[in-house]
Amino acid sequence: METNLQRIRTAIEDISRFNSTPGNGCTRFSYSKEDRMAKDYIIEKCLKLGLSVKVDAVGNIRARLEGTNPSLPVIMVGSHIDTVRHGGNFDGVVGVVGAMEAVSTLVENDVKLEHPVEIIVFAEEEGSNCGSTMVGSKALTGKYDIYDLHSLKSPSGVSCYELAKGFGLNPDQIGKHVLSPDEIKAMVELHIEQSVVLEREGLPIGIVEAIAGMKTIRIVAEGVPNHAGATPMGMRQDPMAASAQLISAVEFIARHKALPDTVATVGRIFCEPNVPNVIPGRVEFTVDIRDVEPQGIETARELIERELEAVSKAYGLRIWSESIGESESIRLSKAVSGAIEESARELEIPHMRMNSGAVHDAAMLAGITEVGMIFVPSRNGRSHVPEEHTDYEHIKLGCDILLRTIMKISEMK
Amino acid sequence: METNLQRIRTAIEDISRFNSTPGNGCTRFSYSKEDRMAKDYIIEKCLKLGLSVKVDAVGNIRARLEGTNPSLPVIMVGSHIDTVRHGGNFDGVVGVVGAMEAVSTLVENDVKLEHPVEIIVFAEEEGSNCGSTMVGSKALTGKYDIYDLHSLKSPSGVSCYELAKGFGLNPDQIGKHVLSPDEIKAMVELHIEQSVVLEREGLPIGIVEAIAGMKTIRIVAEGVPNHAGATPMGMRQDPMAASAQLISAVEFIARHKALPDTVATVGRIFCEPNVPNVIPGRVEFTVDIRDVEPQGIETARELIERELEAVSKAYGLRIWSESIGESESIRLSKAVSGAIEESARELEIPHMRMNSGAVHDAAMLAGITEVGMIFVPSRNGRSHVPEEHTDYEHIKLGCDILLRTIMKISEMK
Repeated sequence: METNLQRIRTAIEDISRFNSTPGNGCTRFSYSKEDRMAKDYIIEKCLKLGLSVKVDAVGNIRARLEGTNPSLPVIMVGSHIDTVRHGGNFDGVVGVVGAMEAVSTLVENDVKLEHPVEIIVFAEEEGSNCGSTMVGSKALTGKYDIYDLHSLKSPSGVSCYELAKGFGLNPDQIGKHVLSPDEIKAMVELHIEQSVVLEREGLPIGIVEAIAGMKTIRIVAEGVPNHAGATPMGMRQDPMAASAQLISAVEFIARHKALPDTVATVGRIFCEPNVPNVIPGRVEFTVDIRDVEPQGIETARELIERELEAVSKAYGLRIWSESIGESESIRLSKAVSGAIEESARELEIPHMRMNSGAVHDAAMLAGITEVGMIFVPSRNGRSHVPEEHTDYEHIKLGCDILLRTIMKISEMK
Repeated sequence: METNLQRIRTAIEDISRFNSTPGNGCTRFSYSKEDRMAKDYIIEKCLKLGLSVKVDAVGNIRARLEGTNPSLPVIMVGSHIDTVRHGGNFDGVVGVVGAMEAVSTLVENDVKLEHPVEIIVFAEEEGSNCGSTMVGSKALTGKYDIYDLHSLKSPSGVSCYELAKGFGLNPDQIGKHVLSPDEIKAMVELHIEQSVVLEREGLPIGIVEAIAGMKTIRIVAEGVPNHAGATPMGMRQDPMAASAQLISAVEFIARHKALPDTVATVGRIFCEPNVPNVIPGRVEFTVDIRDVEPQGIETARELIERELEAVSKAYGLRIWSESIGESESIRLSKAVSGAIEESARELEIPHMRMNSGAVHDAAMLAGITEVGMIFVPSRNGRSHVPEEHTDYEHIKLGCDILLRTIMKISEMK
């Protein structure tokens, strides 16, 4: 029994067409028209497989294949389908299609598992709307509540709550849909690696042992907007010049002052009024800090705060920071990783154990259940870009391991 | 004979209501709906005064009060009515209302001048649309042609040509509307100071001797967008980190390496894709450099280019710069400045001679005619912001001097 390469490819290609920026990568924000179309596509496939489908308060899709003993906790498999702006066709989608493919293979081979299996499609993993990632898995595991949905806001000021509501969901019900630990036996996520390790090692499969933790902060510098020509250098309170100092400091700290694997990124910046001949009045940017070691994140954060105070004093500006998202580094389940490794070995698929620099929905689930992750290689290590690519042959191997792992988990004590 | 404070105030307040961001400063971009309404308001007033009104290929309004000798060259007075985003009610508008007020006063007192007087409202002075300032006065003086209108583009890619066309203008006629030196005797612009000198000196009137030159460049840094979590610091090609270095260098160069009065400003920045968890692929920002001494601009520009090459090498990125606008520093007309000063003295209005750090449409006219400028104080030196303010009593003194100056110029040999 094995998964179907052609079916996997077709599903990934089909979903890639629900895209608001055709010709310039794939852009499919949660709660958008494209998200709606992609979800309808997935739900229809799940219904055809005979699964029961529910959509929860924030838009997570849960599609259940009943077990021979329906009272047993579910084995959850899946990922997300939302993307960054101008992202690729594989991030997240591979894990959703992988879950659908594993379940399809079980159904077409009439294999009955004792435990129910649930395909999950997490909403708003990338945080493209409101700057905070993994909203769907945080809601499902009770990490986010209704107040978080109200306070998370898009750059234009629309709350995550309003976005979900506008999508026809009932976000007020968020509390009712929180997953309790006794409802779930394990969770497995197939995902692209998004780095270069597997490609460099020439291996098609990575078994994830730990996921880096992450902290995202927003830094805001407020100065005094004024005419760019008529205001002498010595009389300026320029938040752009101050922000430039801070952004350079973020890079220096991550490179030289935190731990060896710490990374920090300034990926978003806004400037007001953002015209060439006006000294800006306000500049705001995000800093995304990650490390498998919590100490790396803490050190970077502290040094950035210290620099912020120094720059604020030097420029006579009000500069402040606030946390807009975080997740702890996670050690994944030895039992599930063992099942993945055993599956790979039995299928004679070359593999290695590794860490993940990127955070995933699986990390949220690790707080309440046994979690494992399977990585497939990213060409040139690139992700979150139009060029993102993973060979379909590698995805198929990942799906085969995922399928076998689900069967093993169902038999685990 | 003097100008009318109440009428001046009413006209400025009326025009301030044509505003796309009420409650958050005044925003009136050229070729917008608000621009249309403000222009209709001005044209109606001019027609009521019995002036003949023409609108040229790029949207400059020219309203002519005939002289007793219509074959003589015109005395041009005016400024602009477009604003930066979230700007104030006075920048530009004071000079347009001042010109209308001077002409109204002549008409209502039935004073006939030998020379025709022309009220001019220059289009697109701020460059809020396509990043290049003084499009209207550059077109009128032949500095911009049809190719420039096509190549100047808004951030969303709409050309200045298309903007003008969409506004109902005929930009293809730009060449036919170029002013020849023998059509014009002199040009006088009343404007707010946009700095703190007059306020600090406690004087209501400045007579401008020189206008700073300016050079605006766009710097673009192209890197490799990638996942913010999965890409180690040592493997990044991050244009945001490189841009931060360059923006800091711009400030340092203007403060310490160019001439004492050189200023340089980074007022606009764009980042792609501009999401928190993606290392940017492209960052672009503007640098606005100004000085009365051309050497100050040149030195700053050269040092910025040198830094650009160093940063480009250090980061392994393609970084380039291009000029998107410039104007030379200008010595204004001794004859017109003399007429302004004589008028101030005769009216017993305290005044001083000074330079302008900001560039104005008048600077463009200086290439073809005798030009003078009158400054009125800016509260706290602030301009291009909602708080921009000039006392109406000061504006009225400026209008009185403007009126008297026009009469003196008409009598000049």
